[in-house]
Amino acid sequence: MGTHRDPCVKKGPGRPKQFDRDAALDKALVLFWRHGYEATSMSDLVTCTGAKAPTLYGEFGSKEGLFRAAAERYSVRFAERGARLLMDPERPLAAVVEAYLHDAAAMFTDADLPPGCFLTCTSATLSASADDIGGMLRGRHRRREAQLLAFFQQRQASGELSDQVDSAVLAKSLVCALHGMAVQAQEGATRADLDGIIATCMAVWSTLVRRVPAPGLRP
Amino acid sequence: MGTHRDPCVKKGPGRPKQFDRDAALDKALVLFWRHGYEATSMSDLVTCTGAKAPTLYGEFGSKEGLFRAAAERYSVRFAERGARLLMDPERPLAAVVEAYLHDAAAMFTDADLPPGCFLTCTSATLSASADDIGGMLRGRHRRREAQLLAFFQQRQASGELSDQVDSAVLAKSLVCALHGMAVQAQEGATRADLDGIIATCMAVWSTLVRRVPAPGLRP
Repeated sequence: MGTHRDPCVKKGPGRPKQFDRDAALDKALVLFWRHGYEATSMSDLVTCTGAKAPTLYGEFGSKEGLFRAAAERYSVRFAERGARLLMDPERPLAAVVEAYLHDAAAMFTDADLPPGCFLTCTSATLSASADDIGGMLRGRHRRREAQLLAFFQQRQASGELSDQVDSAVLAKSLVCALHGMAVQAQEGATRADLDGIIATCMAVWSTLVRRVPAPGLRP
Repeated sequence: MGTHRDPCVKKGPGRPKQFDRDAALDKALVLFWRHGYEATSMSDLVTCTGAKAPTLYGEFGSKEGLFRAAAERYSVRFAERGARLLMDPERPLAAVVEAYLHDAAAMFTDADLPPGCFLTCTSATLSASADDIGGMLRGRHRRREAQLLAFFQQRQASGELSDQVDSAVLAKSLVCALHGMAVQAQEGATRADLDGIIATCMAVWSTLVRRVPAPGLRP
C-alpha cells in the first residue's frame, strides 16, 4: 500500500492506493471513542486505519495530532449539523429546539458508531496529565452552549423570546439535557427512550420560556 | 504496617496498625475515578492506599474485587442518600424532587472528590472487554432510575401524582437531568451553575407532572 498524500493521485490497476484522510479519521475516531485517548496506541491506530505509520505521522504529526483531527472530524460530521439547525431564522423557536434535540438523539444512537457522545466519552477517560486535550474537548462542548446562547439571544432580539428569560440558564439547561441523553445512550437507552425524554422537554417548553428564573430563585 | 483484618484489633504503641478498609476504599475510589478501571494497576492501588499488596488481595481478592467494593462504597456514601430522601412520605412531591436534585449537585461538586459522577466517569472509560464491570456500573445507574420510578408510583398510589402521568418517562427524564448535571460538573460547572439548572427544572415541575406524554406523542 502506498503512502501518497496527494489527493489528486488517480486510483487504477498498478497505481499505489491513495491515502483517504477522512476514512482513516473515521476509523481512528471510533477507536479513540471506544478505548479513550491514552489507552489507544499509535500501533493500534496503524492497524485500525490500514495506513502505514509514516503516513499517519506525516499527515497528523503525532497521536495527539491525530486525536485532534478526529475530534474535528466528529464536529464536522455531527456537531455542526446542530449549529446549522439553529441558523434558520424562518423556523419557529420550539420547532428548532425540538429538531436540534432529535438530531442529537439520532447522533447518540447512530448504529454505525459507539453509543453516546465522542466528546463526553473521551473527556471522561482523560487523566489529569492530558490537560491540553481535555481543554480542547471541553472547549468543543462550551462552543455548543455558546451557539445555543447566541440562538436564544437572537430570538430575544427578534421578539420571539421574552427578554425576561435568562437565556444563559436556558442554554445550560438544554446542554444538560443533551449531556444526559448522551450518557443514557452510552448506557443502553434506545432512540425511543431518548424520544420520550425529548417529548417531556417539549411538553414543558412553553412553561420554560415563559419563566426561566435566575439561579437561586425559587419558582 | 500490619495486615490484620480483624476489625477489633486495638491500636496502640507497638501494635501493628489496623487495616482501615473504608479509608483504603475511599482512596481507591478516587484513583479509579481519575484514571478509570483499566488504567489503574494494583501497584498504583498499593501506593495510593498505603496498604500492602497481600492485604489488598486478602481483603478484595483481585483488582476487580477492589473496584466492585469501591463502587459499593460510592453507593453507600452517596447514591443511598438520595434513596433515603425518596422514602419520606410526609414531604411533598416537588420538595422531595428538589432536595434530591440538590443532593446530587452537592455530590457532583464535592471538593474532596473528582468532579461529576463515579459511575458515569468509570463507565465511559471501560473497554468492551470489561463487560462484567460495565454491567455492574450500568446496573447501579438503573437502580437509581428504578428507585425514582417506585417513588413516583407511590405518589400516584397516594393520589398526590396523577395517574395520567407516565411515571416511567418522568423517571427517565429526571435521570437524564442527573446525568447531564454530572457531565457538566465533570467539565467544570460550579454548584451555582447546577443550582440554576435545578431552578429551571423546578420552574417547569408543575407543568411536567400535569402532563408527561407517552414517547412519540407531541405535546
